Amino acid sequence: MSLDPTRLAPMANAIRALSMDAVQAAKSGHPGMPMGMADVAAVLWSKYLRFDPAAPDWADRDRFVLSAGHGSMLLYSLLHLSGYAKPTMEDISKFRQLGSPCAGHPENFLLDGVECTTGPLGQGLAMAVGMAIAERHLNAEFGNDLVDHRTWVVAGDGCLMEGINHEAIGIAGHLKLGRMIVLWDDNAITIDGSTDLSTSEDIRARYAATGWHTVTCDGHDPEDIERAIDEALADERPSLVACRTVIGKGAPNKEGTSAVHGAPLGPEEVAAAREAMGWAAAPFEVPDDILEDWRATGERGAAARNEWNARLEASDCKAEFVRRMAGDLPEGDKAGQAFTEWLAQDLTVATRKASEMTLEVLTPLVPEMIGGSADLTGSNNTKTKAMQPLTADDYGGRYLYYGIREFGMAAAMNGMALHGGVIPYGGTFLIFSDYCRNAVRLSALQQTRAIYVFTHDSIGLGEDGPTHQPVEQLMSLRLIPNLNVFRPADVIETAECWKLALQAKETPSVLALTRQGLPQLRNAENSGEGMLSARGAYRLRAAQAGRKVVLVATGSEVQVACATADALEAEGIGADVVSMPCMELFAEQDESYRSDLLPADALKVSIEAGSTLGWERYTGTDGLQIGLDRFGASAPAADLFEKFGFTAEAIVPQIKARLGR
Amino acid sequence: MSLDPTRLAPMANAIRALSMDAVQAAKSGHPGMPMGMADVAAVLWSKYLRFDPAAPDWADRDRFVLSAGHGSMLLYSLLHLSGYAKPTMEDISKFRQLGSPCAGHPENFLLDGVECTTGPLGQGLAMAVGMAIAERHLNAEFGNDLVDHRTWVVAGDGCLMEGINHEAIGIAGHLKLGRMIVLWDDNAITIDGSTDLSTSEDIRARYAATGWHTVTCDGHDPEDIERAIDEALADERPSLVACRTVIGKGAPNKEGTSAVHGAPLGPEEVAAAREAMGWAAAPFEVPDDILEDWRATGERGAAARNEWNARLEASDCKAEFVRRMAGDLPEGDKAGQAFTEWLAQDLTVATRKASEMTLEVLTPLVPEMIGGSADLTGSNNTKTKAMQPLTADDYGGRYLYYGIREFGMAAAMNGMALHGGVIPYGGTFLIFSDYCRNAVRLSALQQTRAIYVFTHDSIGLGEDGPTHQPVEQLMSLRLIPNLNVFRPADVIETAECWKLALQAKETPSVLALTRQGLPQLRNAENSGEGMLSARGAYRLRAAQAGRKVVLVATGSEVQVACATADALEAEGIGADVVSMPCMELFAEQDESYRSDLLPADALKVSIEAGSTLGWERYTGTDGLQIGLDRFGASAPAADLFEKFGFTAEAIVPQIKARLGR
Repeated sequence: MSLDPTRLAPMANAIRALSMDAVQAAKSGHPGMPMGMADVAAVLWSKYLRFDPAAPDWADRDRFVLSAGHGSMLLYSLLHLSGYAKPTMEDISKFRQLGSPCAGHPENFLLDGVECTTGPLGQGLAMAVGMAIAERHLNAEFGNDLVDHRTWVVAGDGCLMEGINHEAIGIAGHLKLGRMIVLWDDNAITIDGSTDLSTSEDIRARYAATGWHTVTCDGHDPEDIERAIDEALADERPSLVACRTVIGKGAPNKEGTSAVHGAPLGPEEVAAAREAMGWAAAPFEVPDDILEDWRATGERGAAARNEWNARLEASDCKAEFVRRMAGDLPEGDKAGQAFTEWLAQDLTVATRKASEMTLEVLTPLVPEMIGGSADLTGSNNTKTKAMQPLTADDYGGRYLYYGIREFGMAAAMNGMALHGGVIPYGGTFLIFSDYCRNAVRLSALQQTRAIYVFTHDSIGLGEDGPTHQPVEQLMSLRLIPNLNVFRPADVIETAECWKLALQAKETPSVLALTRQGLPQLRNAENSGEGMLSARGAYRLRAAQAGRKVVLVATGSEVQVACATADALEAEGIGADVVSMPCMELFAEQDESYRSDLLPADALKVSIEAGSTLGWERYTGTDGLQIGLDRFGASAPAADLFEKFGFTAEAIVPQIKARLGR
Repeated sequence: MSLDPTRLAPMANAIRALSMDAVQAAKSGHPGMPMGMADVAAVLWSKYLRFDPAAPDWADRDRFVLSAGHGSMLLYSLLHLSGYAKPTMEDISKFRQLGSPCAGHPENFLLDGVECTTGPLGQGLAMAVGMAIAERHLNAEFGNDLVDHRTWVVAGDGCLMEGINHEAIGIAGHLKLGRMIVLWDDNAITIDGSTDLSTSEDIRARYAATGWHTVTCDGHDPEDIERAIDEALADERPSLVACRTVIGKGAPNKEGTSAVHGAPLGPEEVAAAREAMGWAAAPFEVPDDILEDWRATGERGAAARNEWNARLEASDCKAEFVRRMAGDLPEGDKAGQAFTEWLAQDLTVATRKASEMTLEVLTPLVPEMIGGSADLTGSNNTKTKAMQPLTADDYGGRYLYYGIREFGMAAAMNGMALHGGVIPYGGTFLIFSDYCRNAVRLSALQQTRAIYVFTHDSIGLGEDGPTHQPVEQLMSLRLIPNLNVFRPADVIETAECWKLALQAKETPSVLALTRQGLPQLRNAENSGEGMLSARGAYRLRAAQAGRKVVLVATGSEVQVACATADALEAEGIGADVVSMPCMELFAEQDESYRSDLLPADALKVSIEAGSTLGWERYTGTDGLQIGLDRFGASAPAADLFEKFGFTAEAIVPQIKARLGR
């Protein structure tokens, strides 16, 4: 479709009208961005974006990410106008109301065509980097016939100011992700006012320094927008297109000011905008001729998709490609045999090492796994022999050196998972989950299968001291809804937890792993048939004497619980040991299983080298919570476990005192 | 002191020897960075750094920040060699052992001369930005006579790759903090190997794009280092000095590789390094002549400090300056009167608005308060009439437009607090505490009086939806040791919490505040004499009928608790209402106070629009925890409170069922 500026202008005005009317009806929202970027969006959708509203899950569609998620009405307008089944005009008229899929910020789980949930600034762009990585990787594996699309981003000044922007564009520049194009809404306005208030940066120069192509255009001149995008497409580097726009363009008295950023225009200004735009239609109505032009943008893609479908049908790779994009794991459990053999052994290894051993088994069997680490490869034990680096020279590699960019890594993992076809996992120290915490939250909210390998999971890391020793991280990650936090106690639990993480298609996982070696606690005798970790917690050892105590522990403290049980039993006090590798999965079990494990008539004692707040749920307030509610210290691990009371010697007297013995 | 390269070389080797020997003795640590930056440090300390080991708290000393905190042996060596009382050689020989102040990473609370705790990468540099802001601000207030020092940073590739680097240098460039100099250990090595693995950035060009001066030098050539630093000092912009170094310089077989980054060299390589450096002294011994040269670097500053002392004594501002640097609040409670008057009123305001009202009273009275927001000034209500913007043109201003840089803001606040003389507070949405979480943790670890104004604290923010609605943030912030999380219920509690935050000299505070209006619950009748919030929780209303239920709530849910109590009382079920604005302060109260408030013989019910995990500590497992353990939704606040059951109508039946009525 060639561009006709005289027809594009009313198309853009349709976005403006819907946006200002929806925000006005909702009495809240952000009209400024959709109105400012309406012309750019009209050009992009009518000429460049490869998509088919009739098949929103077309694997080789271009990905469009609205990183400036507060401008959600831009996206809702585009989806509706171009012919997606949803949102309907009714949905749009109920923008920001309970039950409407047109939420305040775009939610990937509410609408097709919303590639990711955005709003937390900078992360959309960073997720797009992950999508572009997945695209190039799958292109290397499946060829141009099946995977050859672009990733487009609309980003605002906020996205570019956030720290994650630096990390994300650093990864994209290094990997030469030339099929990624960022359309920057360069309106020089933030919430507080002019960008001059807070920044003096030459953004294009910064992007150029980071390996990006940059170009500028008048964001209200379709021909100039087209020129700039063409230049971006011609360049091999990822591109930043600085679109000089007027925020709230079309609102004659308020455009160009921060007043239009995040508040309704008000009835008078809406009327004035209608007048200025020559927009006569009633709210939530679009004249037929304009709607027809918009629907044509959506119909453009059908032919391309049909051709692609034909290529897929003809492809030898079809079954594998379809399986991967569906997110299904390879059939059969070829890993089971290896893990079963470990039951017969006596392996004292750190769980980070156990994780590596597990990955050595899994990664050749599950080719969609893409690993990586934020510059802690040797510490996180994330790279396996099956994995070659994924680089600008070899997108077929499966291991990413993310650099010292935890937040960028986590967001990229989300983007990869959302793209589909790959299962990303990535490592850093558990303490630095703080650096990427909101991306972990977005994994959970977006229901992505991102797997976080967080090692050095307690004071057990030793000498690096309190800045590196997690205390509150375990419990605080457990607070995030729809996130499984696994803390395995030995090599067997580690293998089980990895399998559970892979199987959880719509729930991200954290694996919290030790730096220090841990004895093997599980063997053929105490393992039964199934995966014991699947129930979240299980009885590892039953009391010998009459049960008076149940010790509940996770990870490296399960061995402490065993030693404590030994000491108690030696004094005739029966003690169960319950290992709880995943609190979330345990909470899902039925009441009878839970009360069998944690019976009312025993003193329940939790042992975990982290925050105690929260453990009362399982021990009761009349139980004991052995934990760490202060910052750690710098010393060898064994000294710290002793100092902070994680020894049978320190715990047994507390239990006896509570029992009155 | 003019430089004599022939004497500087052995001085640098003293750092190398101490570092490799200490790491070897500890069997863990990071020799590569101290050995690589030894020459740069020797030049800096012998010629440029303004300091006096005899007076580490000299207010006008240069601040030296080791942002690459893993290279802690560089700092410990410098402090010891230049004549600080601590660390002793004995301390150094016990590097990374329990009880030694020479922790794995430098801790500001263990040693004078350690200006801030570093290790979490990028944050040292970002805290230095805050120090440089505080310096310019105090300079504007007290003049060159009292405040006129520099802020030096040693940073590694990791510090520069982290996202926070972008935010921090953006602030510094915008504010033209020309007295800040970053010495970049440009060794082209990260943990995973060559920086080529993960980055292709032109770092100097990026800094230049952000308003920085940059220069490069040979980091092993004292004269070239001197030339570069002189050029940096001559430029008005903040400066990045790229010091090209060889990591682990001096270790002949391992230098220049990632092998020397984070592991002991091993006895053979230590011996080879001794040989190569011509270092004959035993471990932890420094030849007298070299030690004398080092001690001379420390003695340089005495004269300058004496002159400064004389200026301070002669200054009219002495009392005020000393008060501010001591961190003492102004005497008298002039604010009390204003707050007392509020007790007679009936103000329905959002607590963010109540916070603004409080700040309008406090900021004129406490001139050391410096406010700001990460581009949400009008939403966080953080700017008062007393405050003009702090800008490059007017460092005397007291309000910072931090831009969309939450992490950079929080780290800068830490730096300001650590510098002393100012009390920083800064705002963003509570959800974006995720973006700056590790800096909040460092506030707590470093015992800084940083005050976080986190507004929009629940689903009560309404239409912006789940990306913006905190769920787990409140409880997860409570898990951080030494952090007071305040969630006031009305205007009176808000004023009380602000005062408590200001009074907590060594504990940072979070104020979690609503977007939506809240009724005034406190008045002269139910407020008694003291600040009720000071005990963390208190009985707001006592049961009328016989007490069967205690409702414990925070913030916006206290009004829900009151409505629930009304409904229960109407049915003859007596219910106390306990407001708990600060769980941490309540936990510090004695047992009798706590059990009086939360008696064993009542059904205890917590009501908070956030995670329930943790509330069992106060309700018992037999109590009820009314909360939100899923993500929110986009809709008006009232609809959400109803949908998620935060109404008396939804809560009363649950209580009655539990009571068997």
